[in-house]
Amino acid sequence: MPTISELLQNNETFAAGLADRHLDVKPSRQLAIVTCMDSRLDVFAALGLGDGEAHVLRNAGGIVTDDVIRSLAISQRRLGTREVMLIHHSDCGMEKITDEGFRIELEEETGLLPEFPIGAFADVDAAVRESIDRVRRSPFIPHRDVVRGFVYDVDSHRLREVE
Amino acid sequence: MPTISELLQNNETFAAGLADRHLDVKPSRQLAIVTCMDSRLDVFAALGLGDGEAHVLRNAGGIVTDDVIRSLAISQRRLGTREVMLIHHSDCGMEKITDEGFRIELEEETGLLPEFPIGAFADVDAAVRESIDRVRRSPFIPHRDVVRGFVYDVDSHRLREVE
Repeated sequence: MPTISELLQNNETFAAGLADRHLDVKPSRQLAIVTCMDSRLDVFAALGLGDGEAHVLRNAGGIVTDDVIRSLAISQRRLGTREVMLIHHSDCGMEKITDEGFRIELEEETGLLPEFPIGAFADVDAAVRESIDRVRRSPFIPHRDVVRGFVYDVDSHRLREVE
Repeated sequence: MPTISELLQNNETFAAGLADRHLDVKPSRQLAIVTCMDSRLDVFAALGLGDGEAHVLRNAGGIVTDDVIRSLAISQRRLGTREVMLIHHSDCGMEKITDEGFRIELEEETGLLPEFPIGAFADVDAAVRESIDRVRRSPFIPHRDVVRGFVYDVDSHRLREVE
């Protein structure tokens, strides 16, 4: 069976086992989590997060791009979040490419240069600090007192804080 | 206890209950899922997704921004994914704002106009179709044969496909 069809069957089983309920659109923990798209990080399970508790933003690398600033601005200004938790991880695909190399690959294959930055990084701790700085420097994000950064070890499942 | 500290304790309990293991950085289902940051959608649980199976990208609205194109390009070109599943949802915060209203709010409070589009939408089905189109139109994404879009009902937990 194709993957998406199998996931739709899984969803039917999941929904059938639950009662309908309505939770508020505003996250109850007033928290937004920014992390990588990596397939080995099940954010809800790894943090013991419940439904309705926190926004979860994910992209390649878990880096703070303009789209993350956009999402955090909406999260804080309209949906009541106050704290930001940034999670990068070990063995990240973004450590295996370079901005220049990937841009050249895209240009050679498509004839177009992407207008977006690639966001590769060589040092995950430095990348976490840069992400913290980007949140702290953004005037569009009103609440910047609690912005903490972590690295998730995809083998041991453990979080380590980056100071 | 502050929220982030509580989640760190949850993570210690989670990790302590699991053996170390290494899964490949390339998702085994060769799938990337793009969805909203909404706190009521636990993607792994709702789709019966296992660790290491699929990339999960999330932002405000689950809309296909440049950052999503960037992430999908890396996902497909370097990490082997081939299919894209787009999931918007009911009761979305992006239906409760307008681009113009939110831009004016940001400008009035910060004195700066954001350089990023806001991405508000009024019709969730139309927004899903627009997201599908953005993926299908991007030359940076090599595999565009399987791009399917859905709306997740946050009350009933069910997915509905948008044709």
